[in-house]
Amino acid sequence: MKQKKIVVALGGNALGKNLPEQMVAVKFTAKAIADLIEEGHEVVISHGNGPQVGMIQEAMTQLTRSNPEKYIPCPLSVCTAMSQGYIGYDLQNLLREELLDRGIQQDVTTCLTQVEVDPNDPAFANPTKPIGAFLTKEEADKLVAERGYDVVEDAGRGYRRVVASPKPVSIVEISTIRALVDTGHVVVAAGGGGIPVFKTEGHHLKGAAAVVDKDFASELLAEQLDADLLIILTAVEKVAINFNKPDQKWLSELTPAEARKYMEEGQFAKGSMLPKVEAAVKFAESKPGRTALITLLEKARDGIHGKTGTTIHQ
Amino acid sequence: MKQKKIVVALGGNALGKNLPEQMVAVKFTAKAIADLIEEGHEVVISHGNGPQVGMIQEAMTQLTRSNPEKYIPCPLSVCTAMSQGYIGYDLQNLLREELLDRGIQQDVTTCLTQVEVDPNDPAFANPTKPIGAFLTKEEADKLVAERGYDVVEDAGRGYRRVVASPKPVSIVEISTIRALVDTGHVVVAAGGGGIPVFKTEGHHLKGAAAVVDKDFASELLAEQLDADLLIILTAVEKVAINFNKPDQKWLSELTPAEARKYMEEGQFAKGSMLPKVEAAVKFAESKPGRTALITLLEKARDGIHGKTGTTIHQ
Repeated sequence: MKQKKIVVALGGNALGKNLPEQMVAVKFTAKAIADLIEEGHEVVISHGNGPQVGMIQEAMTQLTRSNPEKYIPCPLSVCTAMSQGYIGYDLQNLLREELLDRGIQQDVTTCLTQVEVDPNDPAFANPTKPIGAFLTKEEADKLVAERGYDVVEDAGRGYRRVVASPKPVSIVEISTIRALVDTGHVVVAAGGGGIPVFKTEGHHLKGAAAVVDKDFASELLAEQLDADLLIILTAVEKVAINFNKPDQKWLSELTPAEARKYMEEGQFAKGSMLPKVEAAVKFAESKPGRTALITLLEKARDGIHGKTGTTIHQ
Repeated sequence: MKQKKIVVALGGNALGKNLPEQMVAVKFTAKAIADLIEEGHEVVISHGNGPQVGMIQEAMTQLTRSNPEKYIPCPLSVCTAMSQGYIGYDLQNLLREELLDRGIQQDVTTCLTQVEVDPNDPAFANPTKPIGAFLTKEEADKLVAERGYDVVEDAGRGYRRVVASPKPVSIVEISTIRALVDTGHVVVAAGGGGIPVFKTEGHHLKGAAAVVDKDFASELLAEQLDADLLIILTAVEKVAINFNKPDQKWLSELTPAEARKYMEEGQFAKGSMLPKVEAAVKFAESKPGRTALITLLEKARDGIHGKTGTTIHQ
């Protein structure tokens, strides 16, 4: 088969929810990715960071709480940068090992990636994504008053900070990622949807208190790299309509128009399958010949060969 | 003047000790680095991470302490990876801005860097570098019993974990750093001395509970990149003998032999100027034509032009 340029967006189950889980999960993930590289494809990896950035944000919040004179609250953009270091290290370390075990001499590297967002994105007017530790009412009120945070009560479990999830506008380090791909690297990029930044005056990029959805960031990355294939990995082998109902139906192939129809019917869960299908449709429509595939991590190779998964293309 | 390939090792004052200090310090640092790039030199930046990895380690320790069922202690190698993300983000963001402000279109990127150490390095038998939060006696005893940590009492202020500071043996991502330099990138690499790893079986690289001295990691980086110049930035403009004594003498130029003589006399403080001079001597001796320069951040450009700083070469 023809060798492709592929952006693989890893879902939460590819990384696990904590340190011990991540050590196990990333080993398995490295094998699935190495399968694609072994077939000669150019692979760029992106990933989510929900549990990891949550852990870091919680740790930094506790540190500030116990040492208010010494530490100021750590901006979310900095926590995301830390999570790219944490996850990128594991991915590049274990994928390097897996490739060498297969006799493949290919460098693996992580590109710390900033993703530009629009400060006028409507998402900033309606922050919905909970981040970090649970707070007491007093702590929540203090953060609202002193730092202008948005806070919601979370189902009786306490208060949590919520942030916006704006759409990505551009990938700041795209030419670096291209240079790395062109020199034969396997690249980990746009981790956690990228470090969200926006333009202020001059050339300054300011960190945004936001989280970019990793599926949309991966889609933009795939477009800007002129990839052939965007693989969005998730917890199911195929996309379904009437999910978990008696008339549930797995979908193997979709046109963007069909996918849009199902989206309008409300077939896909918000914050879960919906952004994945939206990102897949956007990529499939961005240029003729581009295909998106949604499937399980361990089915990625079979999916490329058309054996499983849900494929979306024009 | 001839354009050079330069590795610049940033000292603690180039980054500050906490978040607000870092924001101010890195702006200033970006200007000093941009001065070198503007003169046409190829620049690779390395940096320390003492206060930053200390903050992260302290935060992660507190998190584990307050949620022992949910979180396990975060390995030091992972904390170092996080600190590379944190510091690298700031450096690449602000240096990008400074270069664009000067009309220079050059990509800046951070390479997450693992540095291999030797598990038989004698440093592992004598861990001396204090890391992270102060602990109570009970906490210290628990970490010694359960995780085999080395712990020392720190001048009546409590107990602290100490780790080894082994010498770097090789830079795992060296070919990526080379590819980035060769494609015109300004690269931030080997942050905090690199994420220390050692070979176990097969191709596996295991994170080491250690901290590699950033001066030695920078020296190895400069050797492996075949740099012309290693600049070690510190808090003084020149190296001195009889430092802080009536007969103090600033040194402008040194041969490796002269520097060795002063080292043997105990002229340079351990853990401070000594590793810098050692690293400088090692680089100057590694190949004819290689020069090391020790000076202040804001004097780096003048130092390259021979106007100040301490130059060490054969």
